[in-house]
Amino acid sequence: MLVVMRHDASEDEVQGVVDTIHELGYEACPIPGKQRTAIGLIGNDGKVPADRIEALPGVMQVIHVSQPYKQVSREWSPEPTIVELANGTRIGAGEVVVMAGPCSVESEAQILGIAHRLRDAGATILRGGAFKPRTSPYSFQGMGEEGLKLLARAREETGMAIVTEAIDPESLALVAKYADIIQIGARNMQNFSLLRHAGRSGKPVLLKRGMSATITEFLMSAEYILAEGNRQVILCERGVRSFDTQTRNLLDLTAIPVVQSLSHLPIIADPSHGTGVRAKVIPMARAAVAAGADGLMVEVHPDPERAMSDGAQSLYPDQFGEMMQQIGTIAEAIGRTISPSLAAAR
Amino acid sequence: MLVVMRHDASEDEVQGVVDTIHELGYEACPIPGKQRTAIGLIGNDGKVPADRIEALPGVMQVIHVSQPYKQVSREWSPEPTIVELANGTRIGAGEVVVMAGPCSVESEAQILGIAHRLRDAGATILRGGAFKPRTSPYSFQGMGEEGLKLLARAREETGMAIVTEAIDPESLALVAKYADIIQIGARNMQNFSLLRHAGRSGKPVLLKRGMSATITEFLMSAEYILAEGNRQVILCERGVRSFDTQTRNLLDLTAIPVVQSLSHLPIIADPSHGTGVRAKVIPMARAAVAAGADGLMVEVHPDPERAMSDGAQSLYPDQFGEMMQQIGTIAEAIGRTISPSLAAAR
Amino acid sequence: MLVVMRHDASEDEVQGVVDTIHELGYEACPIPGKQRTAIGLIGNDGKVPADRIEALPGVMQVIHVSQPYKQVSREWSPEPTIVELANGTRIGAGEVVVMAGPCSVESEAQILGIAHRLRDAGATILRGGAFKPRTSPYSFQGMGEEGLKLLARAREETGMAIVTEAIDPESLALVAKYADIIQIGARNMQNFSLLRHAGRSGKPVLLKRGMSATITEFLMSAEYILAEGNRQVILCERGVRSFDTQTRNLLDLTAIPVVQSLSHLPIIADPSHGTGVRAKVIPMARAAVAAGADGLMVEVHPDPERAMSDGAQSLYPDQFGEMMQQIGTIAEAIGRTISPSLAAAR
Amino acid sequence: MLVVMRHDASEDEVQGVVDTIHELGYEACPIPGKQRTAIGLIGNDGKVPADRIEALPGVMQVIHVSQPYKQVSREWSPEPTIVELANGTRIGAGEVVVMAGPCSVESEAQILGIAHRLRDAGATILRGGAFKPRTSPYSFQGMGEEGLKLLARAREETGMAIVTEAIDPESLALVAKYADIIQIGARNMQNFSLLRHAGRSGKPVLLKRGMSATITEFLMSAEYILAEGNRQVILCERGVRSFDTQTRNLLDLTAIPVVQSLSHLPIIADPSHGTGVRAKVIPMARAAVAAGADGLMVEVHPDPERAMSDGAQSLYPDQFGEMMQQIGTIAEAIGRTISPSLAAAR
Repeated sequence: MLVVMRHDASEDEVQGVVDTIHELGYEACPIPGKQRTAIGLIGNDGKVPADRIEALPGVMQVIHVSQPYKQVSREWSPEPTIVELANGTRIGAGEVVVMAGPCSVESEAQILGIAHRLRDAGATILRGGAFKPRTSPYSFQGMGEEGLKLLARAREETGMAIVTEAIDPESLALVAKYADIIQIGARNMQNFSLLRHAGRSGKPVLLKRGMSATITEFLMSAEYILAEGNRQVILCERGVRSFDTQTRNLLDLTAIPVVQSLSHLPIIADPSHGTGVRAKVIPMARAAVAAGADGLMVEVHPDPERAMSDGAQSLYPDQFGEMMQQIGTIAEAIGRTISPSLAAAR
Repeated sequence: MLVVMRHDASEDEVQGVVDTIHELGYEACPIPGKQRTAIGLIGNDGKVPADRIEALPGVMQVIHVSQPYKQVSREWSPEPTIVELANGTRIGAGEVVVMAGPCSVESEAQILGIAHRLRDAGATILRGGAFKPRTSPYSFQGMGEEGLKLLARAREETGMAIVTEAIDPESLALVAKYADIIQIGARNMQNFSLLRHAGRSGKPVLLKRGMSATITEFLMSAEYILAEGNRQVILCERGVRSFDTQTRNLLDLTAIPVVQSLSHLPIIADPSHGTGVRAKVIPMARAAVAAGADGLMVEVHPDPERAMSDGAQSLYPDQFGEMMQQIGTIAEAIGRTISPSLAAAR
Repeated sequence: MLVVMRHDASEDEVQGVVDTIHELGYEACPIPGKQRTAIGLIGNDGKVPADRIEALPGVMQVIHVSQPYKQVSREWSPEPTIVELANGTRIGAGEVVVMAGPCSVESEAQILGIAHRLRDAGATILRGGAFKPRTSPYSFQGMGEEGLKLLARAREETGMAIVTEAIDPESLALVAKYADIIQIGARNMQNFSLLRHAGRSGKPVLLKRGMSATITEFLMSAEYILAEGNRQVILCERGVRSFDTQTRNLLDLTAIPVVQSLSHLPIIADPSHGTGVRAKVIPMARAAVAAGADGLMVEVHPDPERAMSDGAQSLYPDQFGEMMQQIGTIAEAIGRTISPSLAAAR
Repeated sequence: MLVVMRHDASEDEVQGVVDTIHELGYEACPIPGKQRTAIGLIGNDGKVPADRIEALPGVMQVIHVSQPYKQVSREWSPEPTIVELANGTRIGAGEVVVMAGPCSVESEAQILGIAHRLRDAGATILRGGAFKPRTSPYSFQGMGEEGLKLLARAREETGMAIVTEAIDPESLALVAKYADIIQIGARNMQNFSLLRHAGRSGKPVLLKRGMSATITEFLMSAEYILAEGNRQVILCERGVRSFDTQTRNLLDLTAIPVVQSLSHLPIIADPSHGTGVRAKVIPMARAAVAAGADGLMVEVHPDPERAMSDGAQSLYPDQFGEMMQQIGTIAEAIGRTISPSLAAAR
């Protein structure tokens, strides 16, 4: 940690910082400069209360040299985390894993029908919302537990694993009961209470990046889950907020290599929410795989024109088939493969 | 609602949109153009499933002419909402209301000591966090119910009303028991489940704008609370995320007149989180009042250098006194007054 | 164009808008709504002065249904524009074109040495700045005409085409004299005077997207060049400004399919400026090709550690070779090829 | 300057950085840490080529402790810069200076008529564009030199000083001939060539902040002007780009106290471009003055409904009168005054 003093800081103020650092149990190393003095704090174990130092008189800025996250970092675990599911799908093991399904579970016919088609096309994980965080209180809010039961039914029939979103402690308990992976959505990325519950669930967690979360904040939110003893975390880039309304969000694919260099956790991309426009989903799915993503999460609906939510960004089932072929060749081009199909296995 | 077709949309596709609009029970009014056709949907009662229309073939974009919020809008209630507290403070009644206190409740001495000073300087509402949403799981997370008890103690002694943050259903139940106003923080602005709980609490709710929330999303989140039958909502602008790291956030003061023209709810500003730097708090507090804010929320600590959180943005008690004087003259200059002091009343 | 009235607009105000539309020579089609009236303007030929309508009393918003750009749009020319250079390289013809070279031309040895290596690895266009727009007036500002002469020398020796930046009318005249493609940098994307000069130069123009330019603004800037009769424009996505400082910019790869659906102009990506970090350049180069980019612009330096600018984002020559192989297989995977090598041709 | 090494940097890499620092003529002070080593560079005179150090192997990040700007900084000149005009108006001297006028000069009647009204209401500087940087090549581009002559005519008649925009070297030469202050617009903030020309003009320069410029970049652009020997620079906050389209830009009023703490240059605010909506201009003008702005730039049109540009954000002349009264009382409230009226003087 580096404490940068104001250019007009007095010697007493510099000494005050040095004293506080000592008081906190660390070593201080002043670095005099032409414009201003900086003071290095040596021995930072990640527990230095930066707030307190920042509040000292004469301090201009506190610069973090160490990263604030620990258990999620590559330094903590050089080995990549592999999340292994009951149906054999392994996320983070080098294979590109595909999660697909409708935005919302709407009916038995819908979810079973699409699950079979997705499984046959090569997806191994089925997505589908039962609890929907909607901007408007008047929009469709999901089928609730009934939706979870339908997802479980689809798992039985197809062998696919299930990922679905939890939005509060009650729904999280239910999701943990039915699903293979608990999804925490972008709007709840800093719902720290929910993160703790997810951490204690014993289930793998898919954590989506918040609308305007920095990579550091994203990893800190994952840290909340690991801090509860749950290392089974999959990160998901799903687009950030931007100044342009041309697309719903701005898919930040650079986040993939960035996260991979900082953390041992797997990271996938969601080009459906990342773009919000059906026609852009396939090119961006290809790009995500080319950038090194450990997987994709894609919205597919049997009849997008009648979808109860997100129809405009949902692929038609045939488009999904095309996408699988294209990402297959891309994966090969970079020395990877698509996660083994369940259809083939049967 | 206006449905804009792609320039190469076929007549069938245009007809498909018209048919769907009819099927949903609304009238359709096609507007031919040189480049493309647009179709007006007439009779929008706020329940049109835009998702479904957006997903139809040939559709380029759906433009919302009506606002998606209802109960929070000026159209719904031309009269401004006034939130009246037990101690007589009225928010939204034309007076500038000041909420002040430390970031976190840290001890009895701290909170009682500062409460007296703030009350004497003219604040009528005491802030102080008992449940802290922290970016890091390893940071101080607040005193919990113990902190709430200390706040209640401060209320007894000073007559100030209490505002404090709830972060999940459990803490919300506790906060509702002890506090006069339940605060929902920026990170939970789209924690819709928590918003519903707050709506059902029967208590006034202070809703902070999310880090990158548009004004529309901000008002939609307030709509969640009103939809539960609770109209006692105070909005709070606290800075949005920007590309510049010079200040912690970018305080969007234009949000004040914008919200006032769209909604009947009162809106206050938080220049402490809005800037993150002590020296910028007073000028921005003045600016917020000049822009027409119904109140301020400001962090003040008896000893910022030893604060357990947010010390660098906390005012010294003497600075708070200065601020009160300055905003008093500004309020007068625009024909308003500061909310009557409790100290004077005693 | 759709004119949305305020909910409390009077009948007179609605009539005022209708009258103004008629006065301007267009047809008006009022669409009554529950909340507010909207008025469609029919026959928009792209010359409606929206400013004037926006300023009428009772008007809340003017919504553009037609796009403001004309000559750059797919509607204007369904055929893709192909920019063909003297050395046979064709941009926009389906092949992936690679432009590479150092940030700045620094010396004859540097530019000739690297040009040979790049040509041998498959690049067909050499980049290198002679006029550098630097944030600081005290930074190295480029070699000027001397640099252009060295680039021309490298062209003679290698057969590569030359692309280099112009920053004002004087440098543009020089660049037009020596280079095959005139680059207009991100900071000058809305330097409309310079765009006009580039339009009149008769040379192909590489237009980089501004730091926070929307796609519409980006295309409008290209429109300035086409409006001068010069259709030889290559667009370049190079990252936009974001709230995260983890990377220098946020590379917006979705801009590639978005621009391709709106415009007939070719679009390439610059993963060097787009990320600012050497280790992220190759994955993002792969991703750009997978997203469908018509080419890449990449910084490569013979000795990045001694580069006079942008060393941290410059590839080592060996890394460039790796990149070429990787993007070659990706291009093939999506049914494209890398632009024919000049080395092979010799 | 602090050089932060990667956690896995070898001792050789650390030594390499130390050696390079020595080679460049500075002192190096390694600070070992738990996670990684950092190396302080001592004696930074603002000329360290950070690019070069950033490119060294093992380096993760270079952190600037010294500010990159020099002549614009408070450290360079503790005395505030005061820009004094021929008509006696002094900018930066504690008085609030008001610049007002139409977006564009449209005709003699328009500019003379409005100038008299503005002068009588207390404005001392007349604004009006003769060269307009427009997003579309098909929009009205200004009257050119003819417009400058009309402005000069208005100066003669009213005694007001003239500020108007230059967009390239040719228009700058003309503007310098006719105007009292040369305006450099937001889109040209990093048109470094134009900044140099402005620096050499010998005239005061009004520099507007770029759409997404950080404060540091803003000050670096001013540095270009000072580096040419011209200290007569007035900075202008005019709103930055944001994710919300509710207002045209996001007026960043915190920039006012931030700039004032970093630089000796005066800073004003433009609430017209800052909001883009007439009804928000007055509250934000008040807020800017309350935040400590040294002046305002406001668009006023005699007949906004017929303005050739920016009508929707132009005040009616009567509204301007109201605004002057309101900011007068705010200025007084914070111990300032409005710059003495020319009307009174006559």
